[in-house]
Amino acid sequence: MVIKRYGEVEALPVTDAGALKTIVRWVIAEEDGAKNFYMRIFEIEPEGCTPLHHHAWEHEIFVFQGKGTLIQQGREVPVCSGNVVFIPPHEEHQFKNSSTETLKFVCLVPSQK
Amino acid sequence: MVIKRYGEVEALPVTDAGALKTIVRWVIAEEDGAKNFYMRIFEIEPEGCTPLHHHAWEHEIFVFQGKGTLIQQGREVPVCSGNVVFIPPHEEHQFKNSSTETLKFVCLVPSQK
Repeated sequence: MVIKRYGEVEALPVTDAGALKTIVRWVIAEEDGAKNFYMRIFEIEPEGCTPLHHHAWEHEIFVFQGKGTLIQQGREVPVCSGNVVFIPPHEEHQFKNSSTETLKFVCLVPSQK
Repeated sequence: MVIKRYGEVEALPVTDAGALKTIVRWVIAEEDGAKNFYMRIFEIEPEGCTPLHHHAWEHEIFVFQGKGTLIQQGREVPVCSGNVVFIPPHEEHQFKNSSTETLKFVCLVPSQK
């Protein structure tokens, strides 16, 4: 069993084109013994965003702090703490922080991407 | 894309032997389009607990509210909001709420269990 505080895990800047003021921590990864899927925690500062992109793997997301918007088929949909999001493979998506507080969410990906 | 509030999803009582005052919501499941892993949210009332058990699949957990203890190899380890836990297959585990506030965590399982 591995127990940790998420804040202890190294924060990596998200450097994909279009990303702004966003870090990611890979809190459950291969080195923890995970074989099927991995857990990351994203933190987006006010005025920050993740890249607008799509890819062949799904996301399973739980927002636990802050407020923002999620681009869904070109529309901006509000999301906040307590939202759950399933993004299927190949669907375009982007998170933006629309508040003055850091937006934080858990985002899981399959290990075979 | 599926966006929901976790509180909208049906709360099912956890009825396994040894479970007490605990509900689970399957917030991302097969009917949402998930193929590789599923997201559940557990809520344990004060004095409640999940069953002490083990099984052939792993858990990936993020605690987002409250305080409790986690049984790890017979010892009680404190956990609280902000803890991440990886429980490998076949390892015994149990969550107990040791506070006066509801303990809440996200817990993911592989679809092939």
